[in-house]
Amino acid sequence: MNFNSKLIKAQKNSLLCVGLDTDQAKLPIHLRKNKNGIILFNKAIINSTKDFVCAYKINLAFYESLGKEGWHILKQTLKAIPKNIITIGDGKRGDIGNTASQYAKSLFDDFGFDAVTVNPYMGYDSVEPFLNYKNKGIFLLAVTSNKGAYDFQFLKVGKLPLYKHVVKTSLKWNKNNNIGFVVGATKSSQLKELRKLAPKSPFLIPGVGAQGGNLRDAVKHGSTIKNNFAIINVSRSVLYASTGKDFAIAARKETIKLAVEILKYRM
Amino acid sequence: MNFNSKLIKAQKNSLLCVGLDTDQAKLPIHLRKNKNGIILFNKAIINSTKDFVCAYKINLAFYESLGKEGWHILKQTLKAIPKNIITIGDGKRGDIGNTASQYAKSLFDDFGFDAVTVNPYMGYDSVEPFLNYKNKGIFLLAVTSNKGAYDFQFLKVGKLPLYKHVVKTSLKWNKNNNIGFVVGATKSSQLKELRKLAPKSPFLIPGVGAQGGNLRDAVKHGSTIKNNFAIINVSRSVLYASTGKDFAIAARKETIKLAVEILKYRM
Repeated sequence: MNFNSKLIKAQKNSLLCVGLDTDQAKLPIHLRKNKNGIILFNKAIINSTKDFVCAYKINLAFYESLGKEGWHILKQTLKAIPKNIITIGDGKRGDIGNTASQYAKSLFDDFGFDAVTVNPYMGYDSVEPFLNYKNKGIFLLAVTSNKGAYDFQFLKVGKLPLYKHVVKTSLKWNKNNNIGFVVGATKSSQLKELRKLAPKSPFLIPGVGAQGGNLRDAVKHGSTIKNNFAIINVSRSVLYASTGKDFAIAARKETIKLAVEILKYRM
Repeated sequence: MNFNSKLIKAQKNSLLCVGLDTDQAKLPIHLRKNKNGIILFNKAIINSTKDFVCAYKINLAFYESLGKEGWHILKQTLKAIPKNIITIGDGKRGDIGNTASQYAKSLFDDFGFDAVTVNPYMGYDSVEPFLNYKNKGIFLLAVTSNKGAYDFQFLKVGKLPLYKHVVKTSLKWNKNNNIGFVVGATKSSQLKELRKLAPKSPFLIPGVGAQGGNLRDAVKHGSTIKNNFAIINVSRSVLYASTGKDFAIAARKETIKLAVEILKYRM
């Protein structure tokens, strides 16, 4: 099944994505010194939130920084995610062709992610090896949620900001219809603009919660007319909803709270 | 010792960097099925080239694609590199602050690289966690060696191409004097321009060899007046100089050939 079809099914119940940016130092105290702390934590978070999400986004940096062990933890985490839920490998890779192929192989063949995030700065041949995986989703960075987004992404190229060129140009590469875009929830008006420019592409929308993005705008401006396709990511506010033994229950409550809010905005 | 001082020392003998983009499928046949094939290969390449290089650049994708084992191979490879030679972790990472911190921690603290490559598309706060490592080198992508570089890096922002904005803007972030730039050898005239714009920064110059970049221009246009600071990377033409049992000798010959050529251009 191709990515967009899988996404349509996964989004029947929810537009919410939980980002598993799990930080050892922020684990509940009773798990912090446990050798399997992160695996136990991730499994508990997945079990308590899986009925209310369409996707899990896994931030590779948090696993790479754990060394050899991180690879194992990542595999175990992926195993715990039900097959009907989208998995996104968030690594923002981007390199020359032969190197990009290695990254694609690792993320799609070895880890089996349904989708990845890719940095477009190096252009077409750095993205192509990912796009060649026809049934996988490729989210290109367009407007990111951080403050530094203004440094380069908003520079005017002719009449349009760079991020619009990224979207316009890359839509021409979309022969397998598997390109999506990362658009930060902290940039509402850009979200609205880009939804017009790419009316049918999935958007991965981070920045709600700890980063301060507006949930209403993410839903209203991020969705397509036909398929939703707004994947709204929250990480820290769910993962660390409580640092006590009730962390999974607290994460579940926070997820349901967000899911309810999202449903209201879809009325 | 800070990165620039270490680089000055390392470049006494050579401007050459060998890229360890080691691909299992391209190993000499007698090593291809050996469990420790890549480690044995890398160690032999390092031993036979170390007297003629200033740096080794390790392309993280080639190790990540090996899964858990890749982490071990990378560690063993780094161990085999003499301490006076620069090690560059080429991962082209770039992400929001708390994530970039995890990447920096992994590359600098865990692996102990002297320098890394970073993608600037997400702006200052995505680069800052790397820059905070005062004694490490941070090479920002300016003009890359691939064809896709023309898609976005060359777009005109006002009168200047985007890559010049990247260099001009990021030089303002250089309070620790540890920023360098990646400038592809395939883009000679841009190399010349950027050397004027950043007369004192180290340049990491890939694209000579398999990618067709001009070695003479890389040396002539890439060097600073005072310190050289042109780190000229070759990967495939050295690693796969022979696919027989004589691969290390062939790699040594190719490295010396390039070192001689570079010395001539420095006359």
